[in-house]
Amino acid sequence: MPEKDLDTLCINTLRMLAVDMVEKANSGHPGICMGAAPMAYALWTRVMKHNPKDPAWPDRDRFVLSAGHGSALLYSLLHLTGYESMTMEQLKAFRQWGSITPGHPESELAKGVEVTTGPLGQGLANAVGLAVAERSLAARFNRPGFEIVDHFTYTLCGDGDLMEGVASEAASLAGHLGLGRLICLYDNNRVSLAASTKMTFTEDVAGRFAAYGWHVQRVRKGNDAGAVEKALLAAKAEGAKPSIIIVDTHIGYGSPHMQDSFEAHGSPLGPDETIATKKNLGWPAEAKFHIPAEALKVYRSSVKHGEKAQAAWEKLFARYAKKYPAEAAEWSRFMSGRLPEGWDSDVPVYTPDHKPVATRTAGGEIMNALAKRVPNLIGGSADLDPSTKTALKGMGSFQAPGTGDDTVQGSQKGPWGYGSPNVAFGVREHGMGGILNGMAAHGGLIPYGSTFLVFSDYMRPSMRLAALAGLHVLYVFTHDSVSLGEDGPTHQPVEHVASLRAMPGMTVIRPADASETAEAWKAAMTRKAGPVSLVMSRQDLKITDRTRYAPASGLASGAYVLAGPKKGRPDAIIIATGSEVGIALDAYETLSAEGIRARVVSMPSWELFEEQPERYRMSVMPPEVTARVSVEAGATFGWERYVGSGGVMLGIDRFGASAPVKANMEKFGFTADNIVKAVKRLLGL
Amino acid sequence: MPEKDLDTLCINTLRMLAVDMVEKANSGHPGICMGAAPMAYALWTRVMKHNPKDPAWPDRDRFVLSAGHGSALLYSLLHLTGYESMTMEQLKAFRQWGSITPGHPESELAKGVEVTTGPLGQGLANAVGLAVAERSLAARFNRPGFEIVDHFTYTLCGDGDLMEGVASEAASLAGHLGLGRLICLYDNNRVSLAASTKMTFTEDVAGRFAAYGWHVQRVRKGNDAGAVEKALLAAKAEGAKPSIIIVDTHIGYGSPHMQDSFEAHGSPLGPDETIATKKNLGWPAEAKFHIPAEALKVYRSSVKHGEKAQAAWEKLFARYAKKYPAEAAEWSRFMSGRLPEGWDSDVPVYTPDHKPVATRTAGGEIMNALAKRVPNLIGGSADLDPSTKTALKGMGSFQAPGTGDDTVQGSQKGPWGYGSPNVAFGVREHGMGGILNGMAAHGGLIPYGSTFLVFSDYMRPSMRLAALAGLHVLYVFTHDSVSLGEDGPTHQPVEHVASLRAMPGMTVIRPADASETAEAWKAAMTRKAGPVSLVMSRQDLKITDRTRYAPASGLASGAYVLAGPKKGRPDAIIIATGSEVGIALDAYETLSAEGIRARVVSMPSWELFEEQPERYRMSVMPPEVTARVSVEAGATFGWERYVGSGGVMLGIDRFGASAPVKANMEKFGFTADNIVKAVKRLLGL
Repeated sequence: MPEKDLDTLCINTLRMLAVDMVEKANSGHPGICMGAAPMAYALWTRVMKHNPKDPAWPDRDRFVLSAGHGSALLYSLLHLTGYESMTMEQLKAFRQWGSITPGHPESELAKGVEVTTGPLGQGLANAVGLAVAERSLAARFNRPGFEIVDHFTYTLCGDGDLMEGVASEAASLAGHLGLGRLICLYDNNRVSLAASTKMTFTEDVAGRFAAYGWHVQRVRKGNDAGAVEKALLAAKAEGAKPSIIIVDTHIGYGSPHMQDSFEAHGSPLGPDETIATKKNLGWPAEAKFHIPAEALKVYRSSVKHGEKAQAAWEKLFARYAKKYPAEAAEWSRFMSGRLPEGWDSDVPVYTPDHKPVATRTAGGEIMNALAKRVPNLIGGSADLDPSTKTALKGMGSFQAPGTGDDTVQGSQKGPWGYGSPNVAFGVREHGMGGILNGMAAHGGLIPYGSTFLVFSDYMRPSMRLAALAGLHVLYVFTHDSVSLGEDGPTHQPVEHVASLRAMPGMTVIRPADASETAEAWKAAMTRKAGPVSLVMSRQDLKITDRTRYAPASGLASGAYVLAGPKKGRPDAIIIATGSEVGIALDAYETLSAEGIRARVVSMPSWELFEEQPERYRMSVMPPEVTARVSVEAGATFGWERYVGSGGVMLGIDRFGASAPVKANMEKFGFTADNIVKAVKRLLGL
Repeated sequence: MPEKDLDTLCINTLRMLAVDMVEKANSGHPGICMGAAPMAYALWTRVMKHNPKDPAWPDRDRFVLSAGHGSALLYSLLHLTGYESMTMEQLKAFRQWGSITPGHPESELAKGVEVTTGPLGQGLANAVGLAVAERSLAARFNRPGFEIVDHFTYTLCGDGDLMEGVASEAASLAGHLGLGRLICLYDNNRVSLAASTKMTFTEDVAGRFAAYGWHVQRVRKGNDAGAVEKALLAAKAEGAKPSIIIVDTHIGYGSPHMQDSFEAHGSPLGPDETIATKKNLGWPAEAKFHIPAEALKVYRSSVKHGEKAQAAWEKLFARYAKKYPAEAAEWSRFMSGRLPEGWDSDVPVYTPDHKPVATRTAGGEIMNALAKRVPNLIGGSADLDPSTKTALKGMGSFQAPGTGDDTVQGSQKGPWGYGSPNVAFGVREHGMGGILNGMAAHGGLIPYGSTFLVFSDYMRPSMRLAALAGLHVLYVFTHDSVSLGEDGPTHQPVEHVASLRAMPGMTVIRPADASETAEAWKAAMTRKAGPVSLVMSRQDLKITDRTRYAPASGLASGAYVLAGPKKGRPDAIIIATGSEVGIALDAYETLSAEGIRARVVSMPSWELFEEQPERYRMSVMPPEVTARVSVEAGATFGWERYVGSGGVMLGIDRFGASAPVKANMEKFGFTADNIVKAVKRLLGL
């Protein structure tokens, strides 16, 4: 068969598989699959380095379907190129309960799906994160003649991705960072879900990306796999800039009545139009899930190419391991996700001799102690590290080589280059969230990101995807309540801790003092199955005397008895978190002096507590003690779970106020006196 | 005094007032105030149309300090130009409890503060919304020779604003819409909170905005008020494009040791540096809050100019009212916030004869019925109106005149132009959120925006500001649970209803059927003190027989007894919301048939319910009935408030799954049978 005809056959195979999947499910998005099939074909069979037999090969190129609604295209590619778990049965179970082929790709389900996508814009940000991870690892481990980290990240985006702010943020940063290993295919079909892009999106995409510092190409014949291939190779050759290739396509290509229509976006073609489309493309009209042998042969060549590429890499790595055994061992440790021996041995121990310290500040000290022993801890803040204290000192800044030096102001002193673990995200919380997900998905790194707690809202869609995909991403959220003071209600979180607790798969830890902060970081580092939000105070907090009260190691259980009568049942329980624990302890001392038997439970993490055996939970909060007070400088929403119907919740169910911390804490009622009163009221005293 | 010297005196007055405010509060952001004072001075005294004596004059130009941390600059401008409530005492009470001068500007506190800003990027999006509102009202009410709506929107942005995705989204849409009345001053000081922008933000801002379709200018001498004025006038003259003026400035201008340093961003200069700065700028070194009489005279000329401009406008409007009395009356009604007589009289009445209908679909019908009588209802979706059903039919699309026509695909058929109430936001949820806030802040319009509930996360920061500022913005969130089916967990909200309930000032309404949807819309239209989230099903729901059960008017009370024993106390209470109410009714019928006395409470809105008198609340959920079951296809988080410690919560505390709706509802346990079992278990049966 002439090459052109074979290309067309292969491309139509992809198109029709996707169409049949959507038809069978009676649900899905055929349009993008039909329009973007040629570029996907060119990328997956001619350019991308991957080995279907070993989807976990570390030096594979990464592919991100940012336009996740094109999932049928991705699943078809995986099946055709030979990913074994992506069986024909799975294609036929598209969008059904229990399948690995859900409506939008989920990385935790199917091998070869690098990240979970669907919410638009996220995938492009993930791709930036994957490319950051690649350069970070390359800078640390590659040696002359030993490019053991040497891969590209490809992403396929639609107009919806490019309209989303998260993509703008990530793209601007990618341009700044000069991520030449990042290549974006833009499926320019000029039709969105609701209408022609003439109604909403007429910006000059090429000009915009050029302004971000990207290398820009355009392929006007989107059905020409050869033209796409050529552009991809040119993009690969551009080493210092990320690339975008604008590929002009037709949504629903081949459908006689729906091509170029917004109706092709998110609905099945329907039986009649499916047949008409197949006829139009010269496809057997009645055949379903048809894969011509010639086409399969082309796709399956990926296996041979992939195995060969991986074998070459394995050989290279074996030579590397001989010449650089320490580096090879460290690289293997990075990729395994294991923490090194003694990883937490430098974490400071805080005693009451230490002057009061904000948990954000203690957190910074702890991170710096960890980073020395865990060099794959990497991250930064959304332009707030002087406030969130998250810079790793003396370790420079993750920047494109040759673009500047450490004389530039900021807290990230030290050499610039891709080897630095300090990533300056700029004022781009959402982009940061998406990039962190990509870094975590890459493997090898433990990424963290930081901002004020109130701005967690800006990155919430990315955090949700981290939780869904089970990515080990750490968030450091400081300035955690009205006690941040003068910046006022726009900057004061109220509902945020509750909102994060409500999110499945998210672990929230709000430590009470520096000692709990150390424990919180240890918990976060070892809790690998999902993201962790560390919630820190702006204001200084006294170090709790752990000889007088219980040790901070109780944090690992989520909640623990910090203070109370040595013997017998308490009459009341005060449950506090974070900066309010110290106030609760003051109240406890007053109550004790008056002979009232109260217990203080420090409860830094609901999620950790709820994982404990019932016996432990009952011992911390005995059901028979119903006089309970919760104390948390945030929304009371949800606290009924622990205080019960008869308890008192000291919290804030309104917006905050701009005033110094002392005024705010008093005005909002966070005083020992108020806690004492609440306990007495509950006990009828 | 020579003009240049007088300019400098005026500018330094502004700078030093702000510096003194920050010093007195020992908290704040002096850097931007010192750097951006010249452009602010030029705009406020020479270009902007405003009347300090009547801050509510409808045809005033709007000013948005998107870089809200420069609040001291704004408060100083208000004081100097003669806004009476902005007294010297208020300047001295900057950032103190009870002042109208909080850390970031809050529109609900101080007259002349148009919108609440601080979280970066939001202000620029708000400004786009203000400009949309202006063009919308102008298109509807202006007549040849009677430009009664004829004002500009100015915004002052920093690099942080421009890095934020929300600003990118709004700017792209503003360019598309050709909002020539929007003018952005970009304070290009090349320093962010954490460092030089060399570390994070090296994109070509001019090129990016040109790509968005903006008119771009650059003023290289940021201290030259005349140059800024000239650029502003050129921007005003550009009628078909929004303008950005890149003004090169120096953060902390005049401070001998902190100018151009990131340390000038967010901390007081300190007493020594303050004195050094004053000396450096030729200011009385020891004077505090010093306002030279010559400078005050210049600023206060705003009063004379403003009064004159307003008087001319009043005259024009009087003539307009004579010639176009109906339009004038309608304009006055728009601006008053009143709803017209009979505004809800076309809202459909749904009976069980009607076939089952999704609340999203009923909502669309209701909105269309409302829009005919309430033409100031204006809004759209983030590219989802074919799914969210929120297009106002036959009413065209809000688009720049002459840019297209209604032959373009989409659900917004009808003529294109600024007169249309259908705003196509594109795939820009966050931009939409910020734009809606600006539209609401403008006055005259009731804006709504729509997307899938799961994507409320994308716009949450804007929603929070709507809640804080008390803006009447309506959100239509459809596809409200796992029952959206095949799109899968990336698109299935779980924690979102809980997260919205946790937000102060947000009203959440999740109607059970079409009848409750009508009531929900009525409640939303009349609840003017803040935003309302309407949460709608994707799937069809039976119309509840209101002759058999209670009328839907109970929605106004938030929760009401829908079904139950006619006499005496029920033994159990089933509390359900939205699509689960129908299932609860089925369970109720089963229980009744077995002689079990259960009550069904439909609870569309916690917030409305919690506003009811205690007596009503107790009557709906009598405290003595402790056998309670909540049924909601979302996180159980918070439901303990109503079911108590001993109740059962049927909900979803994990992520959803990609499967048809029927499979999902069964797998996740939302069946009448499960409810019946839960009730029996609670009753020990």
